[in-house]
Amino acid sequence: MTDPAPLPRHPLGDWPTLQPGCVWLVGAGPGDPGLMTLHAVNALRQADAVVYDALVEPGILEWANPAAQLILAGKRGGRPSPKQRDISLTLVDLARAGKRVVRLKGGDPFLFGRGGEEAETLVAEGVPFRVAPGITAGIGGLAYAGVPATHRDVNQTLTFVTGHDQTGEAPGADWAALARGSQVIVIYMGMKHLAKIAAALIAGGRSPEEPVLIVREATTPRQMTLETTLAAADAAAKASGVLAPAIICVGPAVRLRDALGWLEDRSGGAPPIDLET
Amino acid sequence: MTDPAPLPRHPLGDWPTLQPGCVWLVGAGPGDPGLMTLHAVNALRQADAVVYDALVEPGILEWANPAAQLILAGKRGGRPSPKQRDISLTLVDLARAGKRVVRLKGGDPFLFGRGGEEAETLVAEGVPFRVAPGITAGIGGLAYAGVPATHRDVNQTLTFVTGHDQTGEAPGADWAALARGSQVIVIYMGMKHLAKIAAALIAGGRSPEEPVLIVREATTPRQMTLETTLAAADAAAKASGVLAPAIICVGPAVRLRDALGWLEDRSGGAPPIDLET
Repeated sequence: MTDPAPLPRHPLGDWPTLQPGCVWLVGAGPGDPGLMTLHAVNALRQADAVVYDALVEPGILEWANPAAQLILAGKRGGRPSPKQRDISLTLVDLARAGKRVVRLKGGDPFLFGRGGEEAETLVAEGVPFRVAPGITAGIGGLAYAGVPATHRDVNQTLTFVTGHDQTGEAPGADWAALARGSQVIVIYMGMKHLAKIAAALIAGGRSPEEPVLIVREATTPRQMTLETTLAAADAAAKASGVLAPAIICVGPAVRLRDALGWLEDRSGGAPPIDLET
Repeated sequence: MTDPAPLPRHPLGDWPTLQPGCVWLVGAGPGDPGLMTLHAVNALRQADAVVYDALVEPGILEWANPAAQLILAGKRGGRPSPKQRDISLTLVDLARAGKRVVRLKGGDPFLFGRGGEEAETLVAEGVPFRVAPGITAGIGGLAYAGVPATHRDVNQTLTFVTGHDQTGEAPGADWAALARGSQVIVIYMGMKHLAKIAAALIAGGRSPEEPVLIVREATTPRQMTLETTLAAADAAAKASGVLAPAIICVGPAVRLRDALGWLEDRSGGAPPIDLET
């Protein structure tokens, strides 16, 4: 393999150097390789070891240093990983062996990504780290489904909530307060408990007819969307196969996709936009 | 100027082509050029016209096609722009003139970025568009200040709220419900009404001693942070000069930065991480 093309010249200085013995916690974004940041590409190219999640789009790993060791960590499905402690210690061991380590996570490492826990272990063990944030599916994935996370006419509030807690059960969120306080709610890892969550939001005052959009594998070539309502969401998802891994958007923003759905279902007329897939 | 280095080979196909007469709504991220996505760089290089916000870090524009027309739109300070309609129509005019148009916005175009409104105008006028999401300061900017937006031990909920509504006043958010429903609250464009917002959250049940982090110009070389409390936040911000443009994080996640502040105040010992500034 030939040397990769250099990154664009950095306008403020040089691209950061990943030093031996350091760990970078890097967000890979929701799937589309074009949503990787320059920091993320720069990190991958320097890595001696890449510890990546199952949710990272495989093609992205082609940008890693060809000599890098690629280590799969984590599982699909949002289940609580009994191995979180092991993953953190793997990072420590690799760093102590003098490797340049990239921990590559789907989305953003600090948004429901357990990057904070891994960083705490690195700090406790004296391993230097930095963070390279990534695009999260709750914003970027919705955009690929034609839904603006916020819109002046629709919502001044947007809440991200996880449908799993540390035990793997639906979290102890105050769904009634969320139902009243947040006009748009985006649920991560919520497919398993969708019926329970929808019922809690309805009990908290949201309409059973409130629009819901489920986006599976957002921004990947396999992206699937399902538009439904709060009352019907769980049954509709099971019937359609639009299941985990998925994000769930609850709120009036969903209605905007009839007009703004640029990726799918463009009624067009004007010249088509050339997409990468 | 010589031709720029090519982007890394796209693992799934080709980089998308920006067609004449089309508009791409592109997020520039919070400031650090390394937080630009590959899609964003790809867009800038093809543009005949770049309509950019004042909050876009200037160095990023060096990546634009040298022949592109650079047009400044929008203002600093989070004030409601009377020109939003004009900006949208500028995009339409440029597209109708056959230009390849990039609308470059700080952060993400769909998160308090008015990208939805611009997209609606483009659709109404028959101009094809696509969206290239960006890193938002409420996640990526907090990460540069050492705060994970979520952490399993701290919060299962995270709310973004704007401190301005369409009239430029503090919004009609249900602050009492937010205070109860969301463990961590990130306020965009909230500096002007910070005293009022803090009082509303305290009235809603949050402790006056609740930790608050204000991050001004997050991820830029000018990043400033102020750690304070809900009761003291407004006075402390005014006394310290950590003012708009800034994001405000309310909640226990702020305390994690004592351990996780990797960019500033690293007590270190191990080899320093080479940062780009």
